[in-house]
Amino acid sequence: MRVLGIDCGSEYTGYGVVEEFSAARDRRLVCCASGAIRLKPRDPMAVKLQQIFSSLSAIIAEHQPRMVAIEEVFYAVNVKSALKLGQVRGVAMLAASWAGLEVAEYSPLSIKSAVVGYGRAEKQQVQQMVMRLLHLDTPPQPMDASDALAIAICHIHTAATLRRHHAVTS
Amino acid sequence: MRVLGIDCGSEYTGYGVVEEFSAARDRRLVCCASGAIRLKPRDPMAVKLQQIFSSLSAIIAEHQPRMVAIEEVFYAVNVKSALKLGQVRGVAMLAASWAGLEVAEYSPLSIKSAVVGYGRAEKQQVQQMVMRLLHLDTPPQPMDASDALAIAICHIHTAATLRRHHAVTS
Repeated sequence: MRVLGIDCGSEYTGYGVVEEFSAARDRRLVCCASGAIRLKPRDPMAVKLQQIFSSLSAIIAEHQPRMVAIEEVFYAVNVKSALKLGQVRGVAMLAASWAGLEVAEYSPLSIKSAVVGYGRAEKQQVQQMVMRLLHLDTPPQPMDASDALAIAICHIHTAATLRRHHAVTS
Repeated sequence: MRVLGIDCGSEYTGYGVVEEFSAARDRRLVCCASGAIRLKPRDPMAVKLQQIFSSLSAIIAEHQPRMVAIEEVFYAVNVKSALKLGQVRGVAMLAASWAGLEVAEYSPLSIKSAVVGYGRAEKQQVQQMVMRLLHLDTPPQPMDASDALAIAICHIHTAATLRRHHAVTS
């Protein structure tokens, strides 16, 4: 299973593509791509949104994920920043559904729990675990890319748990 | 000049296309189309956003506006509703810029001032003036369609004022 994680932000939007290879009891995660789309603060919002949509569509076309995972947002400094973040998030979700992909949403707590095993983990701890789980020698840069990889890993772990649960109960 | 006004909402998104015909000192506004895109509350957000994008893209392709006008939002009940509204707004702006159109944003105060001449006008007063300015016998339905027409009228009035100002000062 190949998953694209997206970490939306009104300045940087991180992305990370993770693939799970599994054979018998052996499961291995590989980082296929990661990075961040940087928006120019002075560009009009419509131009920024077009850049997000084009870049994510290109990433989806190149890496062919089967699924997109995105962080649920409950908190923002104020209504204005929530609106801005919502705009980017809306366009990111559209890029996924436009490509025929389903979008799974995970709370920050679920992401940290799935990756670090502790819902209140610090950003650096998440980054360390992302490096370890994906066998990376250097931390993915910028931090938004690391966060996006964490979201993708969260989806893969959650899907694996659901598969095991299904295998046990059916 | 033909303008598409969009009134974003997380349930109904109103649209209204207004054309200005001007000859010498005679200016006339005509309503080319109006209505609202209704989102099904139970659909996943990604599906709703795709519906907004497809519908607005179809409206732009059919009516060929030269410009898109949208309401600026400063207020929302809470962060959660601001995020939802932001998502719809982002996709609406994307539909415009994707079609190569510029997006102008107007505050609720500017829209009411431009249409009614009074920034604190009630919704019904705005609807009455929209009917009068566009020579409509019945109020555009739903209210979101009327609001979208008001946004388009606001842009046309503002552009006319700027043209006059430019003619006087240049």
